[in-house]
Amino acid sequence: MEQVFDFIDSNRKEAIDTLKNLISQPSVSATGEGIRECAHLVKEMLAQLGAKPTVYDMRGSSPVVAGKLRSKRNPRKTVLFYNHYDVQPPEPLELWKTPPFTPRIKDGKMYGRGASDDKAELVGRLVLTEGFLEVTGDIPCNFKFLFAGDEEIGSVGLAECAKRYPGTFKADAVIWEFGGVDGNERPLVSLGVKGMLYVQLTATNATTDAHSSLGAIVQNPAWRLVRALNTLWKNDRILIPGWYDNVRPFTNKELKLIHDAPLEAGALKKELGIRRFIEDMDVLEAKKALAGKPTCTICGLKSGYVGAGPKTVLPSEASAKIDFRLVPDQDPKVLLKKLKEHLVRKGFEDVKVTYAHGEKPKRTSPDEPIAVSACDAAREIYKKKAVVIVSSAMTGPMSVFKAPCVAIGGGHPFSNAHAPNENVRLDLFVKGMKWVAETVSRFAAT
Amino acid sequence: MEQVFDFIDSNRKEAIDTLKNLISQPSVSATGEGIRECAHLVKEMLAQLGAKPTVYDMRGSSPVVAGKLRSKRNPRKTVLFYNHYDVQPPEPLELWKTPPFTPRIKDGKMYGRGASDDKAELVGRLVLTEGFLEVTGDIPCNFKFLFAGDEEIGSVGLAECAKRYPGTFKADAVIWEFGGVDGNERPLVSLGVKGMLYVQLTATNATTDAHSSLGAIVQNPAWRLVRALNTLWKNDRILIPGWYDNVRPFTNKELKLIHDAPLEAGALKKELGIRRFIEDMDVLEAKKALAGKPTCTICGLKSGYVGAGPKTVLPSEASAKIDFRLVPDQDPKVLLKKLKEHLVRKGFEDVKVTYAHGEKPKRTSPDEPIAVSACDAAREIYKKKAVVIVSSAMTGPMSVFKAPCVAIGGGHPFSNAHAPNENVRLDLFVKGMKWVAETVSRFAAT
Repeated sequence: MEQVFDFIDSNRKEAIDTLKNLISQPSVSATGEGIRECAHLVKEMLAQLGAKPTVYDMRGSSPVVAGKLRSKRNPRKTVLFYNHYDVQPPEPLELWKTPPFTPRIKDGKMYGRGASDDKAELVGRLVLTEGFLEVTGDIPCNFKFLFAGDEEIGSVGLAECAKRYPGTFKADAVIWEFGGVDGNERPLVSLGVKGMLYVQLTATNATTDAHSSLGAIVQNPAWRLVRALNTLWKNDRILIPGWYDNVRPFTNKELKLIHDAPLEAGALKKELGIRRFIEDMDVLEAKKALAGKPTCTICGLKSGYVGAGPKTVLPSEASAKIDFRLVPDQDPKVLLKKLKEHLVRKGFEDVKVTYAHGEKPKRTSPDEPIAVSACDAAREIYKKKAVVIVSSAMTGPMSVFKAPCVAIGGGHPFSNAHAPNENVRLDLFVKGMKWVAETVSRFAAT
Repeated sequence: MEQVFDFIDSNRKEAIDTLKNLISQPSVSATGEGIRECAHLVKEMLAQLGAKPTVYDMRGSSPVVAGKLRSKRNPRKTVLFYNHYDVQPPEPLELWKTPPFTPRIKDGKMYGRGASDDKAELVGRLVLTEGFLEVTGDIPCNFKFLFAGDEEIGSVGLAECAKRYPGTFKADAVIWEFGGVDGNERPLVSLGVKGMLYVQLTATNATTDAHSSLGAIVQNPAWRLVRALNTLWKNDRILIPGWYDNVRPFTNKELKLIHDAPLEAGALKKELGIRRFIEDMDVLEAKKALAGKPTCTICGLKSGYVGAGPKTVLPSEASAKIDFRLVPDQDPKVLLKKLKEHLVRKGFEDVKVTYAHGEKPKRTSPDEPIAVSACDAAREIYKKKAVVIVSSAMTGPMSVFKAPCVAIGGGHPFSNAHAPNENVRLDLFVKGMKWVAETVSRFAAT
């Protein structure tokens, strides 16, 4: 492995140039700007590596670019690298110190939209592969590459692609798109994401807003909505029958990892301007909730008049947007059905449920060889014990892969992902490549 | 009285010219346009009648213009005419067939902003007074005139004026600002209005919107609001303890009047596009509810993201606007206190209650001499039995007067009050004057 690390070190400049080139190509999935060009660019990068790229043109979404390399000495094991070549819109532009698509290096960081999320990781995967090939003439096991172009807009095309071409998504382990160190330079190994069911509830009655004096005789959809919502959640628990049926409990090992993972509760409360967590939960409870609690969050409420002062109106419509976060093994389709049945059973057949987005949760056991390999590799590279995140509170399309999945890489917590002045630390860019190389090397040997 | 009626008939043209002149003077209280000029104009009209006008300059609101005339033969009884010289904003202008402040006569109607609400009534009161004076050299009892300039913006100045100058508001009976016939040309005698308590409830938590994945550990003010609202109302009943304590039941006579008053339920449902009234109430129940049911109407709901599609945000604030309609003898101040105490008792001390507007209810007994006089006069003038409205479902500043109060006049249901192409039917303009003259004449003799 030392020779592979040497290759990575001595090719630092070339890797940085490749990253610069990739950042310079805008690829904003929200607007479509540069998406096709960027898909072509990453396809060429795979071709140059000899990874026989295929471009899946997903109608209505961005192309999915896939590639594969066969290992000579270990062709029965496959690692898949999932990354995305699309980026968040760069706005607000006025807050960028340098133009978002003109990458600049300053103080050991490269700045530009996509620098951290997810172009440095994507380039890193290719450079370390090149390292294996140059130094050993082979790779430790088969490698697959899957580069999505719609991660920032909900991954609908990726999910469709997984359905149509399941073979392309098959592997023994997946290296997820992000990862890195925490605020104390401890390497993070993330093993899961929450799922999501996002719906809108809408109550209507009259065809037009009316004078509120008619509230004496005309049903108010705002009241219908409030009462319907009220049947969904109480004391931090979702009241829909069967909602928790498929919730997989944490193993003792996962509980220990949650206990050991740090949460800067004081700093978080300060940042949010709150004095306590919901239900007055302590730090351990908060960590468990973030990793494994199904949630029901009202993201928006809308009805009638919301301007200044009083207006005497009886609204004709009221709606709420709700984000349910799911945990293994909850399924958004099953729960959507339960939600609808619950509302009907409670007498709210007039409250319409509109499905907006669904994503299955995913959690990889810390005992999986890929997870163990990532932790062992972290200790080797960083000379520190990895912090294992049993599951992020966030949601991502991890569940399109059946295989175990770990999120590791070269990121850091101040990278401004999704924000102006996004950046990647070049030392971690290099270190992250070594970590991933060490991880797949160890995994291939299991 | 025949001579007074003759005077009204033969002065039709002069009355119409006076009305034209008054409509030509804009007086939009919402913007302040022309308010001072119009106050001056009605003051001059009172002066011309010899009614010794006083202008009360209510700081922060429109001037209240008052006048009085003493009866020689019956100085121990006083009738007060309440009207308002301000009008609703004329917008949307493009829907007017003729300019709102350039009155035009077409097909027996005069069109213009304020034609019906309330300038024809105001002019009518002055013309009939002139009739009494011209024909009899006296008036049947003392007359007081009270012309407000802020009826369309909540009557805050009027209420303050009543507090500061109670003598000006004293009378034995009040002729309210509006009235007329229904869709079947039956004269309407309205005896009351509902009161109002309008508040905003606001729940807050974090100082900033957060990512909805934090819903696992951060209290959501939208949920706090929904749960707080839910303690207020259920099955068409307000759940706040003591809310109904001072509700005055209908007398048997009032119940009979409510039963006899028509409600075009089918037409109303069709207009609103609804199939049934709340709680499936029948027509009689609906009439009782409109006249005498306290209500709790959500007029607006607002929180978080309300645009298209899903957005994963945990709101920092949620608010609801609520219109409570009150009935005699409920008091908005007392109920505001009960509402606040209720929320605290239910554990919602974090939900802020902001008072926006309050108005006491008012209901005059159908046995009051002024009510009996109005009904008898209606039969005389229209040759039809009056429809007695025990209470409107609407709210107005009737309670600033302690005296019994009836709403009668020259309006009709298609007058487009508050809407484009507002108009007054000139036949009813004249007939309404006679009706009011006959009413006060009969009342003076009681």
